Amino acid sequence: MLDDTRFGLDRHATLPGPLRLDGGALLSPIDIGYETYGTLAPDGGNAILVCHALTGDQHVASISPVTGKPGWWTRLVGPGKPIDPARHFIICANVLGGCTGSSGPATVNPATGKPWGMSFPVITIRDMVRAQAMLLDHLGVETLAAVIGGSMGGMQALSWSATFPDRVRAAVVIASAARHTAQNIAFHEVGRQAVMADPKWRGGDYYADGDPPAAGLAVARMAAHITYLSEAGLTEKFGRRLQTGSAKSFGFDADFQVESYLRHQGISFVDRFDANSYLYITRATDYFDLAEEHGGHLANAFRESKARFCLISFDTDWLYPTSESRAIVHALNAAGAPVSFVELNSPFGHDAFLLDSPGMNRVIDGFLRAGA
Amino acid sequence: MLDDTRFGLDRHATLPGPLRLDGGALLSPIDIGYETYGTLAPDGGNAILVCHALTGDQHVASISPVTGKPGWWTRLVGPGKPIDPARHFIICANVLGGCTGSSGPATVNPATGKPWGMSFPVITIRDMVRAQAMLLDHLGVETLAAVIGGSMGGMQALSWSATFPDRVRAAVVIASAARHTAQNIAFHEVGRQAVMADPKWRGGDYYADGDPPAAGLAVARMAAHITYLSEAGLTEKFGRRLQTGSAKSFGFDADFQVESYLRHQGISFVDRFDANSYLYITRATDYFDLAEEHGGHLANAFRESKARFCLISFDTDWLYPTSESRAIVHALNAAGAPVSFVELNSPFGHDAFLLDSPGMNRVIDGFLRAGA
Repeated sequence: MLDDTRFGLDRHATLPGPLRLDGGALLSPIDIGYETYGTLAPDGGNAILVCHALTGDQHVASISPVTGKPGWWTRLVGPGKPIDPARHFIICANVLGGCTGSSGPATVNPATGKPWGMSFPVITIRDMVRAQAMLLDHLGVETLAAVIGGSMGGMQALSWSATFPDRVRAAVVIASAARHTAQNIAFHEVGRQAVMADPKWRGGDYYADGDPPAAGLAVARMAAHITYLSEAGLTEKFGRRLQTGSAKSFGFDADFQVESYLRHQGISFVDRFDANSYLYITRATDYFDLAEEHGGHLANAFRESKARFCLISFDTDWLYPTSESRAIVHALNAAGAPVSFVELNSPFGHDAFLLDSPGMNRVIDGFLRAGA
Repeated sequence: MLDDTRFGLDRHATLPGPLRLDGGALLSPIDIGYETYGTLAPDGGNAILVCHALTGDQHVASISPVTGKPGWWTRLVGPGKPIDPARHFIICANVLGGCTGSSGPATVNPATGKPWGMSFPVITIRDMVRAQAMLLDHLGVETLAAVIGGSMGGMQALSWSATFPDRVRAAVVIASAARHTAQNIAFHEVGRQAVMADPKWRGGDYYADGDPPAAGLAVARMAAHITYLSEAGLTEKFGRRLQTGSAKSFGFDADFQVESYLRHQGISFVDRFDANSYLYITRATDYFDLAEEHGGHLANAFRESKARFCLISFDTDWLYPTSESRAIVHALNAAGAPVSFVELNSPFGHDAFLLDSPGMNRVIDGFLRAGA
């Protein structure tokens, strides 16, 4: 069933649109970079949409042409995995505002022939979902057997069930939340300010000379990365261990292993991500508040839903803690939606959803098979 | 007993030294900016040393000449307060490496006639304490009725009792820790990288033209500031409330109140603090590991101590959580030191020790009076 040796098809669609955005603007055309794995069943009943997180991409289970690394969720998606191209038609699209093939600040504004930069319209999670729905129309997929995502991907899964209640039969929401808290917004704002403080950002107009605000974006990534890990995980992985030998330098080199690790996270990120996209996508998550879109009552978001829901949280995740998942479960129950909810143990904090988690795989496999 | 209308004396001492630093260098002379309140009793028995936190200063209970604002701990120090100039001789000194009168990167290196910048030696918490001891010698204070501090000030109080066990009769350690964790180091490293990523930092050599790395320092402060607050506190104070009116801008202005607040924290900080000092003082706290200085066993740090100890933590403090205080209490008990320990409730996270806390005042007042 696999279509090429890379396992997956690195695809691109230019859809005419227009797409009316939450901010009021009309976007046309809409570019979408995406991958598919497997084949759509004759009855169209086996499509699964995988939604990526903040800095993810469409290469969920195949090698990224940018980094040369394996897909970011091969532990869950692939032959013999809970989401399996032998059984499912798997779609994963780069989000609107992203930088790996979909319309975003780094792509060309057809009206000017130049990159959009900061003239790209501010987008929302719901805008991302609407663009994905247009892609599904393009691919001939009417309904989704499931939509699944972690972190910002989980927000999209929630928004899918609220925005297109007739097109979603199941939603899996992992390590996510129905709205960004003040602390979530605060951390993102630090990252945005770090990018904008870099003189190379130049109001977002840095594409011409290939000299992007790498230093600012690296700092943004470092700050964000801390929120993806638990204190216990950091202590277990690094503690106060020194980088080389056993002596402090009494200087400002990376003495501690955790410093070196963080610097590496920052530096390697800028090779694969666009700084303006980082601004737009963090803004979209900060704006996300599913209850607000439905009269201030989260349960209202699910009243039309025909989906079964599966919520998964991790006990050491302090970015989107279990209490956020629990609030969603309460609203789903209030709306009479079928929902299962599991809090898993992990030392790895928010990042756990991307790491090896047999418990998570078992829960998702069982949930998906129960609906098949 | 008060010596001037400002209540407090903005003083400065230049001590010949030399001071041998933990990093090996000899520092001479040592400048110390400090304040005193009250009068030393004839028997010298009423001296209290107040140690300030990361970005604090010597103006604990009197107006800062830099900001024009009242002292940072007037809720605890002042007439009728637990630490009272009518009863105590109160000393508060700017830490070594600081930027309000004490030797640090912004002061002049007598060997070159120019500001030290990054040629200033890296210092430790114990170096700060040794410099304070030299100031006490200068002031004719042999022993301290108490040494007290919150956060990095608490680290100094701990280091005092370990480094000068015969000179400390009581130590009050609030919202603090005996060592920096990997997560603590990680947040500080983000701040340092933000400063160093600012092209205006120029390797620390920015004093000549009055154009410091303000943007980088502001980002550093924003990231740090989040760690001073609790998620619950942020939610209570700001939640997702918008800045003006009720509509999102669909732009990158500070839509949310928490964004505006954070930006203000960053911008106002750079007016009162030196970026290089921020590097040095964060480094000192990251290096702090009291157990490591004593053969890897924290209890060993207190074996010579003659002090009574009072430990206070706040339940929503996730920067130096209660578990860190508890580890210190265990070590004190193992060393046979008298210690009382209170965890206080507060919605305000780490910042609670600087805010109105009648419970904290009662605990400290009782503890100090019991030893008088």
